[in-house]
Amino acid sequence: MRDYISKIGGFFITFEGIDGCGKSTQAKLLQENLKNLGYDAHWTKEPGGTDIGNMVREILLKYNQEIDVLTEFLLFASDRSAHAKELIKELSKGKIVISERFKDSSVAYQGYGGGLSINFIERIHREITIIEPDLTILLDISPLVSIKRVKAPDRIEKKGTDYLERVRNGYLILSKLYKNRYVIFDGSKEKNELSQEILKVVENKLKAYFF
Amino acid sequence: MRDYISKIGGFFITFEGIDGCGKSTQAKLLQENLKNLGYDAHWTKEPGGTDIGNMVREILLKYNQEIDVLTEFLLFASDRSAHAKELIKELSKGKIVISERFKDSSVAYQGYGGGLSINFIERIHREITIIEPDLTILLDISPLVSIKRVKAPDRIEKKGTDYLERVRNGYLILSKLYKNRYVIFDGSKEKNELSQEILKVVENKLKAYFF
Repeated sequence: MRDYISKIGGFFITFEGIDGCGKSTQAKLLQENLKNLGYDAHWTKEPGGTDIGNMVREILLKYNQEIDVLTEFLLFASDRSAHAKELIKELSKGKIVISERFKDSSVAYQGYGGGLSINFIERIHREITIIEPDLTILLDISPLVSIKRVKAPDRIEKKGTDYLERVRNGYLILSKLYKNRYVIFDGSKEKNELSQEILKVVENKLKAYFF
Repeated sequence: MRDYISKIGGFFITFEGIDGCGKSTQAKLLQENLKNLGYDAHWTKEPGGTDIGNMVREILLKYNQEIDVLTEFLLFASDRSAHAKELIKELSKGKIVISERFKDSSVAYQGYGGGLSINFIERIHREITIIEPDLTILLDISPLVSIKRVKAPDRIEKKGTDYLERVRNGYLILSKLYKNRYVIFDGSKEKNELSQEILKVVENKLKAYFF
């Protein structure tokens, strides 16, 4: 575990969770809070963390027709392949990299949610990158809270509560499989209270890691 | 071989070859010639045979910066995944489907040309579709002819003669591996003469197949 770190350094934090769980808000608040504490924290997201990723993001989120789950996964994977190279660059500068979503999103959404083989997804991921997050912050909310919060749902968000329930359960399974790096937070909490809870956990992890 | 045909019917012809070999011209001439003979011939291409494919095509061909070979392949693969479903629809109506490029393009370009693992490419293809072409028409030209013919080269075409030489050789290897379905033509021939040669071969194959 973390055998790559001697090569690239840095500390890699991912935010995961179903749509409307507050990933974007909390990822940016964490970056701000870490910067205030003097850490060099870089923020990014998937899909869309690179130029090519932004073009793929446009297709994935704005396209109005049905996209089969394999095509959808391959598009996310192509974005991730471009994105992983950027991540490695930033990590190798010794930065803390905070990413909204990473490969667990594909396992949860296309795998548990959409029924694509999880073995297949992981095989592609191994080709894309060996980088694993050092810490994954799962913001857990119910599908009902998700639907209430997302005002203008995109193509994926329109798939409904049954789909979101499968994705949420997928995340909960992942949090058990990778319990060394997963910390679950209640995404329905007030945002400033939640951001302080997250900061406390991150700080402890960073201290254990860097000092 | 062709064990899928009992399920879906039709006859699947692909055109392959390096850029500038005349795929587009010859594919369309073949469609026209077959229609004149009373065949129901459907024309399509990769990337760009579907709506989502067109969006991916835009990224792949118009994007000006470097794209690593894995990202490039995953983008082509996502287009192919959407496209394969359309192909199957047309084939299952009993049509002759003519496609400019199919999966051999990825093996030749990203595999032999770009150095991506051919095993990996084929593994992904097996997830995308079990459909194999019934006939592959390879229009063989030298890289020098290619560069002379392509007036406004796109991102991939700018990779130069060494790259095109590797791609061309890749196609020649494929033509030996799959000699049952490959027929090689000299792509530097005059277009109408060439189209008549191709039509003759196709007609014989169709007669052997359908009658």
